[in-house]
Amino acid sequence: MADGDDDVPLILTWDDANSGLVVEEEENGVGNYDIVNNVIIPTSGTADPRPQNSLRQSWEMNYQEAAIYLQEGENNDKFFTHPRSANALSAYLFAHNHLFYMMELLTAVLLMLLSLAEAPAVPFLRLDVYVHATLELLALAMVAFELCMKLRWLGFHTFIRHKRTMVKTSVLFLQFVEAIVVLVRQTSHLRVTRALRPIFLVDCRYCGAVRRNLRQIFQSLPPFMDILLLLLFFMVIFAILGFCLFSSNPADPYFNTLENSIVSLFVLLTTANFPDVMMPAYSKNRWSCIFFIVYLSIELYFIMNLLLAVVFDTFNGVEKMKFKSLLLHKRSAIEHAFQLLVSRQRPDGVSLKQFDGLMRFYRPRMAARDRFLTFKALNQSGATMLSLSDFYKFYEVIGLKWKARRSGEYWFDDLPRTAFLIFKGINLLVKSKAFQYAMYLVVAINGIWILVETNMLNDGVSWTRVVPWSYIVFLTIYGIEVLLKLTGLGPMTYFSLGWNLFDFSVTVFAFLGLIALAFDMEPFYFVVVLRPLQLLRLFKIKQRYRNVLDTMFELFPRMASLGLTLIIFYYSFAIVGMEFFAGVVYPNCCNTSTVADAYRQINVTVGNRTVLEEGYYYLNNFNNILSSFVTLFELTVVNNWYITMEGITSQTSHGSRLYFMTFYIVTMVVMTIIVAFILDAFVFRMNYSRKNREPLGDPEEEKGIVFETEVSQTEALQTMDLYRHTLRITNLSSLQSMYAALERCGQPSLVFLGRRSRTKSDLSMKMYEEEIQEWYEEFSRTNLQPDETFQQSLNSPEVSTTDSIN
Amino acid sequence: MADGDDDVPLILTWDDANSGLVVEEEENGVGNYDIVNNVIIPTSGTADPRPQNSLRQSWEMNYQEAAIYLQEGENNDKFFTHPRSANALSAYLFAHNHLFYMMELLTAVLLMLLSLAEAPAVPFLRLDVYVHATLELLALAMVAFELCMKLRWLGFHTFIRHKRTMVKTSVLFLQFVEAIVVLVRQTSHLRVTRALRPIFLVDCRYCGAVRRNLRQIFQSLPPFMDILLLLLFFMVIFAILGFCLFSSNPADPYFNTLENSIVSLFVLLTTANFPDVMMPAYSKNRWSCIFFIVYLSIELYFIMNLLLAVVFDTFNGVEKMKFKSLLLHKRSAIEHAFQLLVSRQRPDGVSLKQFDGLMRFYRPRMAARDRFLTFKALNQSGATMLSLSDFYKFYEVIGLKWKARRSGEYWFDDLPRTAFLIFKGINLLVKSKAFQYAMYLVVAINGIWILVETNMLNDGVSWTRVVPWSYIVFLTIYGIEVLLKLTGLGPMTYFSLGWNLFDFSVTVFAFLGLIALAFDMEPFYFVVVLRPLQLLRLFKIKQRYRNVLDTMFELFPRMASLGLTLIIFYYSFAIVGMEFFAGVVYPNCCNTSTVADAYRQINVTVGNRTVLEEGYYYLNNFNNILSSFVTLFELTVVNNWYITMEGITSQTSHGSRLYFMTFYIVTMVVMTIIVAFILDAFVFRMNYSRKNREPLGDPEEEKGIVFETEVSQTEALQTMDLYRHTLRITNLSSLQSMYAALERCGQPSLVFLGRRSRTKSDLSMKMYEEEIQEWYEEFSRTNLQPDETFQQSLNSPEVSTTDSIN
Repeated sequence: MADGDDDVPLILTWDDANSGLVVEEEENGVGNYDIVNNVIIPTSGTADPRPQNSLRQSWEMNYQEAAIYLQEGENNDKFFTHPRSANALSAYLFAHNHLFYMMELLTAVLLMLLSLAEAPAVPFLRLDVYVHATLELLALAMVAFELCMKLRWLGFHTFIRHKRTMVKTSVLFLQFVEAIVVLVRQTSHLRVTRALRPIFLVDCRYCGAVRRNLRQIFQSLPPFMDILLLLLFFMVIFAILGFCLFSSNPADPYFNTLENSIVSLFVLLTTANFPDVMMPAYSKNRWSCIFFIVYLSIELYFIMNLLLAVVFDTFNGVEKMKFKSLLLHKRSAIEHAFQLLVSRQRPDGVSLKQFDGLMRFYRPRMAARDRFLTFKALNQSGATMLSLSDFYKFYEVIGLKWKARRSGEYWFDDLPRTAFLIFKGINLLVKSKAFQYAMYLVVAINGIWILVETNMLNDGVSWTRVVPWSYIVFLTIYGIEVLLKLTGLGPMTYFSLGWNLFDFSVTVFAFLGLIALAFDMEPFYFVVVLRPLQLLRLFKIKQRYRNVLDTMFELFPRMASLGLTLIIFYYSFAIVGMEFFAGVVYPNCCNTSTVADAYRQINVTVGNRTVLEEGYYYLNNFNNILSSFVTLFELTVVNNWYITMEGITSQTSHGSRLYFMTFYIVTMVVMTIIVAFILDAFVFRMNYSRKNREPLGDPEEEKGIVFETEVSQTEALQTMDLYRHTLRITNLSSLQSMYAALERCGQPSLVFLGRRSRTKSDLSMKMYEEEIQEWYEEFSRTNLQPDETFQQSLNSPEVSTTDSIN
Repeated sequence: MADGDDDVPLILTWDDANSGLVVEEEENGVGNYDIVNNVIIPTSGTADPRPQNSLRQSWEMNYQEAAIYLQEGENNDKFFTHPRSANALSAYLFAHNHLFYMMELLTAVLLMLLSLAEAPAVPFLRLDVYVHATLELLALAMVAFELCMKLRWLGFHTFIRHKRTMVKTSVLFLQFVEAIVVLVRQTSHLRVTRALRPIFLVDCRYCGAVRRNLRQIFQSLPPFMDILLLLLFFMVIFAILGFCLFSSNPADPYFNTLENSIVSLFVLLTTANFPDVMMPAYSKNRWSCIFFIVYLSIELYFIMNLLLAVVFDTFNGVEKMKFKSLLLHKRSAIEHAFQLLVSRQRPDGVSLKQFDGLMRFYRPRMAARDRFLTFKALNQSGATMLSLSDFYKFYEVIGLKWKARRSGEYWFDDLPRTAFLIFKGINLLVKSKAFQYAMYLVVAINGIWILVETNMLNDGVSWTRVVPWSYIVFLTIYGIEVLLKLTGLGPMTYFSLGWNLFDFSVTVFAFLGLIALAFDMEPFYFVVVLRPLQLLRLFKIKQRYRNVLDTMFELFPRMASLGLTLIIFYYSFAIVGMEFFAGVVYPNCCNTSTVADAYRQINVTVGNRTVLEEGYYYLNNFNNILSSFVTLFELTVVNNWYITMEGITSQTSHGSRLYFMTFYIVTMVVMTIIVAFILDAFVFRMNYSRKNREPLGDPEEEKGIVFETEVSQTEALQTMDLYRHTLRITNLSSLQSMYAALERCGQPSLVFLGRRSRTKSDLSMKMYEEEIQEWYEEFSRTNLQPDETFQQSLNSPEVSTTDSIN
């Protein structure tokens, strides 16, 4: 009766229906632990009085709760949001599936997209007031519904004590009222609060990365602010000094009042008005350049870099603490789950039966074979049960993709002899150095060709309908290469390498371009000019480039989330900008400002032709959300941003400058964080590769994490038996096919390989190896009283609760 | 006969006159080791046959050579340049004193300053051709003389194998020929080679820091170049793409040819022409902004930051390796010196006599007392001899300043009772928190006052002759504060804190300003406006600012050397710029270029007044070296640099753009290094303070390194005896005054404190504590064959030989 149904769980969970032990939870209690402490557990070995059926139900409940714990560990949800009753559980399950997440995301995106259609709208997307206000009300109702589900799951007490949710609720209320007002008045009023809409997006489950970024930004803020104050302080000192020195010069408009002096030096901090700001003073007295050189040296070259250093330093620490807290949170989740999976009879091990039960909740779509193999991978000691220390590896093995080890090396091993020899030849060819370098040569010639060809077109491209022959020749070569590699290596091996994927997609794009050229599809011409991307392959030759480009690809997901964070800031600023500055600049406006030239649009007669002389800056406006985004990007790049600022200031009021200066400082924070992030990631990679003496980006290394596990025929039979009879699972096709494979190969056992790609967490694990042991020891010391640890982890600053609920 | 004259040195050095054992050194041999290996040393205990006099001479020679070894260790001079004969020694001694160094420096500076007076000269410094050419010849003759001394010291073989010296020699030869040609023709020809003059400055002993920076720049160059290539590659791809997309727009001058397209994107990389470069395309098709956004995101926000990351990473490694190699070099120097100081009778210890002999050569101006105390500080074990492990601490104790520990706390302890009480009261007052915060309050009020006052002057400052009363009031308060602190703490304690020094100098400056105001000395008015600097004191309140400002002060020396490095680059570029672009831009030039407006200078009639409308950019020229420096600084700041580039290009040829682009890349390298340096220094400080749990910038910590040593009366007497009779040194005043102090205090012994400020090296020692032990072990393993180690250290990339000779 090793895994029989009469095992009794050590800990009973929500099945209050059976035990009748409903305990009113304390406010901060951790749910089931409280229940456990109040249960008088019968000593081990005593027959359980409850009927089999309720026992199975109670196991099912335990599996589910353990799965939820593990889920919470994976998502870094704090345990104080753990559902504590059957009601809460159903709400929890409702609110934790991809359908719900998707709905959440779509609602938030819809709300944000509304600003495309609200006045001032993008011309071709304009909607009537009642249409977009109704849409908005609908979306807000959806959000309200989601919040209700959350309230049900969390309970009122936890709900009102969770800051982010409360902010969301109040913003929701405000938006509701405003949307109704808009609908009633049939016209939009000054709705600056629309700038708060990104809160709904940030709160989405899928935007966890954005939330993490935002938290990192906020954590870096205090030291940043300190240095910023120092920066502004020097600015004011120099502004006073500059005002005293240069205000006597009537030709100098930059320092004629103290306000202008401060604004000039603020803009000078961004270098946008240099050297113009210096010129009037410099033309009067050559030594005045010293003032500007000293100012720039202190502010731009010293304090601004200090700012980066401080943020980098904070960032570094925050990254490590975050990793630590995540690691310990996962460990604690595993411990909770383990407690729920052991039976009263054998309290120090989890059997396959219990593990399988857990996995059916944790990964409902996982095949029985993979569940079994995962259990085997965890079970390194070879015992029938998983000990806690085995179970600690849970998160490492859970993402593995299992495959039987192939007896042969090549995909064409099973083909007939002739075919085998042909493919073997191709395989040797594409793997040879000569082939590789020949391809590099072709790419290099292609590069030079494109350059020469483009240079000969110097009088403008005329989009010739005739396809150039060089294009066809090179494309044929690339096509043949792709085909050879595909057949020689097999599609699986070929596509497993990022570089091949890149080659393939560039070649396919080039073919599409050719088709576009041949069939005269004008809008797709741009595909043709992507040809030079092939040249990027040349960078594979050198190790350092492989490192850099690999790091680049690794950074992309994180960069994308940072970009999204930036877009959220853009959105808020764009809304505010549109509310205040929509339509204020137009051609030939701003004649009273110093930047009138940039807005001028006049017809000038040159010889006998009339030419339109354009200042173009009227295009940098806030007339709709798309224009606003472009304008804000220009402000981010900083160069000449003061022209936009001065133009709008001259049409509105001096207070507008505050908007632009605030925006500059906000983007400076985000940009500094981006720089710090790239620095950190790159230096981390470099240190890692130095520490482990592994060449990064080596093809051997890209295989990621591999686990091996051996399955014998008898074991397979036993497992099938267990699944069929004891667990009564009917869908055993995966196990049957495994057994068939075992029989087919003719050997007594078969090795299965579990693979997954290496994550940042794996690298960190290796980097901090020694420290991790210390953390664990410290953790288990403080972990004697589980309840206390939770309280600590809630109160400790590292594990901030802002990111807790979903 | 403990320290008698009849001890025989273990190793005999250059005294070939006595032993007659002149050995022709091998090319790479290490001098005396070769001699030792060829000498048949009499076994220990055998009476030496040589007369007493020659024995003393031989000891003196050993002291001198040991001192030279230690000097070489301190200066990081490699041992293969060690003088190997009596002749070489005299040349070495001639070339290694501050007078010679000073001469070297002055010659180099004079040579560089000549460009102020050579055509195109700064107007008021213009000299006739024969005057400056003669001056140049004189300076070059000086350099030649210095090189001759070096040749004599190094020997021909070492000399011609030392790269830097050879480059210097050939540049010298070239300059000589050119200077003579100029003198003969009585007119300057195209002398681009003047750009090489900084080599003489870089080679100066006093410019070691600049050499170190240059080496660091060159070491960071290979990875930098790799990423730069990537950057330029993307630039070319985007240039082709841009040319294809936008060249059909006749209103777009930025992409009409491939060359323009590349130049536009190069300038865009520096953001200097954004958003103008986008505007023509953007006004035609709003979606074209995507091209620019993608380009900037990849190039500016990703690859440029990658550049910083790569340089930072290299820099980090280089700093650590440099520290390691310096540390091991010092250790090896100490070992060499130790070998020379032990006697044949007692080969494992250095006695006071020998140590004193060494110190008389190593620090000729050190008092006998301090030599004795340094010996005591080294001699931690209390034995009569210094063991090698004692001696390893040599460089740590050598800079100590010795002082007897005061029995009392205050400087006024010895004053009469009433005075003591008054001063004690002042002391308590100035140390109280209340006093401190009262002063902060005064400073804050002063700051607000200045701001309000300046703001009320909004219609221009009229340099009122009347001194404002607020100025006098605040200055009086500051004056009283300084006086109180000076009297309360005593001048020594007061000035030992950097902040007090700052307060003091700002207050003194403010007084000078007052005097300037009162006595109507117009050129000194600028002192008045330095008043707001007082406000900087407010930043003392917060710990982080103290950290940041302390780091700032610590960084200054290094920053200054980086600045000097930059100036050297500026100088070379300025010379080249002057040779090619002097006088090419002037008001209303460049009418054919796109930037003609910036050079326009026309009279415009506004209403009935004629106003001069100036473009000012003609001021950014290369007409003399000072203007060139300002122009180059403007190019460094990058904003609007393309106006200068395009202006000069339109007046010369398209090739000129190469000059500007090269300059941009060079300054980018230097600036990136500066950023990496600030980052590294700051993060290092932060890690240090975190590791040692010491609050940085804490007043307690600023005392630096302190050694204690106790001297008893009998010891003092014995030492005086030893010095007077055995060593026959007559100038014993310092020892006598120590003895007198001992007698005066009435106690049997007196504690002396040796202090020095903490250096970066001390911090590094503490940071790398564990690794240092490993390095030492590795070093002593490989150090079994001394000759080989030197060869290794010469060949190893870390200890590059470029910085070896003086």
